[in-house]
Amino acid sequence: MNHHPGLFIPGPTNVPDAVRRAMNVPQEDMRSPDFPKLTLPLFADLKKVFKTQRGQPFIYPSSGTGGWEAVLTNTLNPGDKVLIATFGQFSVLWADMCQRLGFTTEIVDVEWGKGVPLETFADILAADTAHDIKAVLGTHNETATGVTSDVAGMRKVLDAADHPALLFVDGVSSIASIDFRMDEWGVDGIVAGSQKGFMLPTGLAIICVSEKALEAHRSSKFPRCFFAFEDMLRTNKDGYFPYTPATPLLRGLRASLDLLFEEGLENVFARHRHIASGVRAAVSAWGLDLMAKEPKWHSDTVSAVCVPPDVDAVKVLRRAFDRYGVSFGSGLTRLSGKVFRIGHIGATNELMLLGALSVAEMALVDCGAKIALGSGVAAAQSSYCAGESVLAKAA
Amino acid sequence: MNHHPGLFIPGPTNVPDAVRRAMNVPQEDMRSPDFPKLTLPLFADLKKVFKTQRGQPFIYPSSGTGGWEAVLTNTLNPGDKVLIATFGQFSVLWADMCQRLGFTTEIVDVEWGKGVPLETFADILAADTAHDIKAVLGTHNETATGVTSDVAGMRKVLDAADHPALLFVDGVSSIASIDFRMDEWGVDGIVAGSQKGFMLPTGLAIICVSEKALEAHRSSKFPRCFFAFEDMLRTNKDGYFPYTPATPLLRGLRASLDLLFEEGLENVFARHRHIASGVRAAVSAWGLDLMAKEPKWHSDTVSAVCVPPDVDAVKVLRRAFDRYGVSFGSGLTRLSGKVFRIGHIGATNELMLLGALSVAEMALVDCGAKIALGSGVAAAQSSYCAGESVLAKAA
Amino acid sequence: MNHHPGLFIPGPTNVPDAVRRAMNVPQEDMRSPDFPKLTLPLFADLKKVFKTQRGQPFIYPSSGTGGWEAVLTNTLNPGDKVLIATFGQFSVLWADMCQRLGFTTEIVDVEWGKGVPLETFADILAADTAHDIKAVLGTHNETATGVTSDVAGMRKVLDAADHPALLFVDGVSSIASIDFRMDEWGVDGIVAGSQKGFMLPTGLAIICVSEKALEAHRSSKFPRCFFAFEDMLRTNKDGYFPYTPATPLLRGLRASLDLLFEEGLENVFARHRHIASGVRAAVSAWGLDLMAKEPKWHSDTVSAVCVPPDVDAVKVLRRAFDRYGVSFGSGLTRLSGKVFRIGHIGATNELMLLGALSVAEMALVDCGAKIALGSGVAAAQSSYCAGESVLAKAA
Amino acid sequence: MNHHPGLFIPGPTNVPDAVRRAMNVPQEDMRSPDFPKLTLPLFADLKKVFKTQRGQPFIYPSSGTGGWEAVLTNTLNPGDKVLIATFGQFSVLWADMCQRLGFTTEIVDVEWGKGVPLETFADILAADTAHDIKAVLGTHNETATGVTSDVAGMRKVLDAADHPALLFVDGVSSIASIDFRMDEWGVDGIVAGSQKGFMLPTGLAIICVSEKALEAHRSSKFPRCFFAFEDMLRTNKDGYFPYTPATPLLRGLRASLDLLFEEGLENVFARHRHIASGVRAAVSAWGLDLMAKEPKWHSDTVSAVCVPPDVDAVKVLRRAFDRYGVSFGSGLTRLSGKVFRIGHIGATNELMLLGALSVAEMALVDCGAKIALGSGVAAAQSSYCAGESVLAKAA
Repeated sequence: MNHHPGLFIPGPTNVPDAVRRAMNVPQEDMRSPDFPKLTLPLFADLKKVFKTQRGQPFIYPSSGTGGWEAVLTNTLNPGDKVLIATFGQFSVLWADMCQRLGFTTEIVDVEWGKGVPLETFADILAADTAHDIKAVLGTHNETATGVTSDVAGMRKVLDAADHPALLFVDGVSSIASIDFRMDEWGVDGIVAGSQKGFMLPTGLAIICVSEKALEAHRSSKFPRCFFAFEDMLRTNKDGYFPYTPATPLLRGLRASLDLLFEEGLENVFARHRHIASGVRAAVSAWGLDLMAKEPKWHSDTVSAVCVPPDVDAVKVLRRAFDRYGVSFGSGLTRLSGKVFRIGHIGATNELMLLGALSVAEMALVDCGAKIALGSGVAAAQSSYCAGESVLAKAA
Repeated sequence: MNHHPGLFIPGPTNVPDAVRRAMNVPQEDMRSPDFPKLTLPLFADLKKVFKTQRGQPFIYPSSGTGGWEAVLTNTLNPGDKVLIATFGQFSVLWADMCQRLGFTTEIVDVEWGKGVPLETFADILAADTAHDIKAVLGTHNETATGVTSDVAGMRKVLDAADHPALLFVDGVSSIASIDFRMDEWGVDGIVAGSQKGFMLPTGLAIICVSEKALEAHRSSKFPRCFFAFEDMLRTNKDGYFPYTPATPLLRGLRASLDLLFEEGLENVFARHRHIASGVRAAVSAWGLDLMAKEPKWHSDTVSAVCVPPDVDAVKVLRRAFDRYGVSFGSGLTRLSGKVFRIGHIGATNELMLLGALSVAEMALVDCGAKIALGSGVAAAQSSYCAGESVLAKAA
Repeated sequence: MNHHPGLFIPGPTNVPDAVRRAMNVPQEDMRSPDFPKLTLPLFADLKKVFKTQRGQPFIYPSSGTGGWEAVLTNTLNPGDKVLIATFGQFSVLWADMCQRLGFTTEIVDVEWGKGVPLETFADILAADTAHDIKAVLGTHNETATGVTSDVAGMRKVLDAADHPALLFVDGVSSIASIDFRMDEWGVDGIVAGSQKGFMLPTGLAIICVSEKALEAHRSSKFPRCFFAFEDMLRTNKDGYFPYTPATPLLRGLRASLDLLFEEGLENVFARHRHIASGVRAAVSAWGLDLMAKEPKWHSDTVSAVCVPPDVDAVKVLRRAFDRYGVSFGSGLTRLSGKVFRIGHIGATNELMLLGALSVAEMALVDCGAKIALGSGVAAAQSSYCAGESVLAKAA
Repeated sequence: MNHHPGLFIPGPTNVPDAVRRAMNVPQEDMRSPDFPKLTLPLFADLKKVFKTQRGQPFIYPSSGTGGWEAVLTNTLNPGDKVLIATFGQFSVLWADMCQRLGFTTEIVDVEWGKGVPLETFADILAADTAHDIKAVLGTHNETATGVTSDVAGMRKVLDAADHPALLFVDGVSSIASIDFRMDEWGVDGIVAGSQKGFMLPTGLAIICVSEKALEAHRSSKFPRCFFAFEDMLRTNKDGYFPYTPATPLLRGLRASLDLLFEEGLENVFARHRHIASGVRAAVSAWGLDLMAKEPKWHSDTVSAVCVPPDVDAVKVLRRAFDRYGVSFGSGLTRLSGKVFRIGHIGATNELMLLGALSVAEMALVDCGAKIALGSGVAAAQSSYCAGESVLAKAA
């Protein structure tokens, strides 16, 4: 029996006990006079997480996928042209959504392991003198390959081309874990989900849009209702919602935001970097490659590890699960069998990752990898000993 | 201080402790080999709740409103004609959604306090010899007015006109509380939410569609992605989801279904009727009217009580909340000030409702109603003493 | 099925959700450097609850019975003489403990329904010129009969006789619900349990002793170990315990104390009085007697109701439980069949008690009592409407 | 910040989520007709854990220390002679209790790191032809030194001397983790606590006594009340208790017993041995000694690790706590600074211990130990890979 399974996928993440407690509440009247005392500060505090003064956050009882749809259908018109690069399963899915929702979707297919191709985007935007492209979409952190892209660079490219397109970013596996600066980077729509850096269960799409996006919204004729900004704007301003919100998750979000601010956002980012560095040291000690082709693409929330050619990553994953009770992230679609992913996002620490790396090693060895037991762990330990302690940090 | 606030709104409902416990789980890998052991039985058991053999259930991380949208956008084509009657805030909102999504919406405006106008529908359907109407929509239980409509009658009217339109039903505040028979009544799409008869928090849209609806789905060109049946069908059959599901709510749903089946669905319905009868006896003893104009419209899940003309229902609600710590449902839109609603849905018992009626009496009296304290409670007690005990009942 | 059973016994009481949440914690190292941050403030805050500056509180993983034993065995010597009055099952049990532990126990048998007989005590103490009596024991609130005694009066009697005996008080069902003033009343040992006014589950004996009692402790030769003050004194001063403490309950105690202080102790007492007044109004309207013979004995935490002679209280209790899912307190030993008890201690409000009174009425009528349904509830409502709102109160 | 602290002390142990959920219950009436449905099976199932047919289990709201006292004060008479060996802090404390309770206590002082000295006991018992010794006490698992003693051997020694003394065993850190056979070994009193192998929080003393001990009880005149068997025997037989029990812990015990039986007791023992073997392999790879002098004393629930002479174990413990957020067990009294303890008792798995060993390594190295990072982890991994998987095991 395994009373304490290990969860090292890039979301849902390991919810802190304080957040679990906060969600374990009796139901509440979402129309009560007291309800805005909970909700209004949530909206205000989400802006701090997104690093925006002027942005407008929205909270939907939904998932990150719903957040993608909310941003698109509220700001664009049917058939509008969008530009997106694909370099992993989640950017592929967002591009697929654009197509299925009927947008004219220009897709730049990038080698998996790299991120948003700034130069190609620069060329395309420069060429689009008619400004047909209404939105440029970027995946801040591609969860399938462990690749973080340069969102500030996307803004520079847009500015360089003097292009008015909206800039939409998928931050599902980056927000509250990797630095993101909505205002400074001129992002017009950012999408997050509750089950990643917010350290909550799945169930909330948390997005934020710029004033420019809200202006676009006013002329958007896309058919929508559940995700309609207009209903949210009308009710949210007083602390209410157009339909019944997922109150326990809102109570959990309150606790999660408190934890994030208590630690300090910059400390949270540093902690993710510290933990990730140890994981990368281990992978390197194993003599294995990350999917991320260059250090500049390294993700601090998930590492996609390429197994040796004669090892089946599916078997490694299954071994870890069946024999050691640990879940790692699988290689998605074309990466199946070639890659397994170690999630190090949300409420993690060294103890957890060292255990996870130990198990990964055993599962790799059990499946035929020529790796010395303890080698990756030792490298991670060295990295952790050398780094600064992350536990004592508070804002 | 009030450590045990009272919640007597028609949803979210008072979650049983067993369900709360079941939801308090660590996060899980939604791609693990074990995950289908949780999910596949949920789909099978939901069919029992909807009383269908051939229907196809779907579970979305969303709300009832999302369920409305899912049924419409997956089965209809842009501009299709739908027929709906409005007789309360929630039927009004569903009609509004139809219009905003671009469907040609024929609205029959019915006096609030009545339900689906079968004769009018019969006339309209008979006249629609071209079969322009692609879907007929009905609100099984109008939560705003406490009115239950005759869904079997809607089927009869369609059959009498030999009309091929799909029959869609909003069962958000009826499913798992008031008898509903999908197959027998020939319903093509039924929409429920987790936070009512399922005794869970908000966060799941639970719907079920007929084979006929799935056939319509295959020719539906409505732009959609988050709510797309096709993605769900492809993944659900193996117990997985196209995007991260709200696992704690699925664990809660397991517990909730176990409780419903342990009690027995027919016993659950009888319990709701028993509890509601006591509430109606109290209202009658107060000399007040229900919004529901006739006994045939009486809802067993919510009673909308008309306050005396010289009393302000808003003040009654506020008094109950501020002074006695009890939330009742407010009068929505045009009913504001005229009506307050007593929710008696989900996990209720006599103890709870007698307390609620006692507080309602005090709040009414405090706000000027000429009502004898104890009068409504006494009537409810008589009703409860005369009825059959609901506690010992099990399937 | 009954998803929300009613609990109206005089303890364990209905634990507030905030306290339940606070207890749902992972286990902790009771020797960690951080542990005193939890424990030292608990000791300090308990002194506020007991209204003492100089007292020494102790927390045992035990029950109120253990607290009784702790006070006796730590301060007396084998064979010492104690004086106690019995007027209900719990004072009888404490006297029985004194005898079984080998103390010379002078028992004043008082009619059940009355409390500590101050005049008799005065006579006995005056006659004890040799000061053989080493401790005088009093039950502040006799839970079996709903009788509150005059502890300040006991002090006066001792002082009038200029008698040096220690004054020990059983406050299990009074502390944190009914005013108690350790220093002002010169109490040398007070015993409480977690599951009453502290609104926690059973599991902690919470006691406090005076400097005089600690002095007696130093010359006490009673064989003891588990309850030994000396081990607690040595370790508690640094925030630790001589053996593993029940940490979740300590976390719960933190939350409970926070709630008590947030409301304000005087407001907590007033709330209990307000709620109890409504219950007493109901009993009076039923034409029934309380066990408490005179208003001066009325307990604000529990009411023992005498059923009519032709009604069997055992059947009333069983009816309430089987048919309505509500637990009331039974008549203990000689009161069995004659009395049922309504607990109104801890986290209660008007909503709860009105429901409980409604059910009590139904159960009484079902068992043959000639009582008008609604009559008691109406009287309680009148009492509650006339009283001051207790909800908004905070310190 | 550290949202998931590590707890690797030999109790309290890491409570499984299923047990935590089971304890999170509303309070219950401990006199309700339904209560025995919970309690009677608990008593029956505890006998399975103790491997007894004829024994009598008791459950006290207390701690293991209270269990020690219960066994002694219920079966012996004041001044009775007992025989006990001391070889660690917990055997020392039990011997101390014997002395403080006034028993004539013959203490055999054994080198710490060894266990019950069977030969010395044999000599003493053989010499006691007058049978002055009424009870022989043994610590099955000395938590301070990680030493497991041979209880079967104690029985053999008693039988060889044909000595009628009662055999009492402290099984606080062995029961439900290391094999124990009450009937086969002729144990007359066994003491356990909830917070170890039962995987619960502290709060219950769980003991079991033989028919012979109950016979001794009938002639025991020791003054007692809270721990008196006689009150428990009278009430337990119907499923009730003489004073309010700690119901949430009883609910947790139900869940814990279910988990133990689902896994199978022998599988639980094998799992502890498997996990402990890895820890011992790591200590060996570090070149360090265990306190347990020989393999026959090795404990499967806790390993006491001797740090190198030039390293301060107090600093190691503090480093692990402050820098890595992990609690190990400290060296108690004379072992302070020389030893740190790794608890591997209760709901553990390889993932957890590999993380713990990784952190122990880092803390040792940080404090100056000449140990290669990863060396101990590698040894533990080898041990775990070679062993049989413990996860799939069920009864």
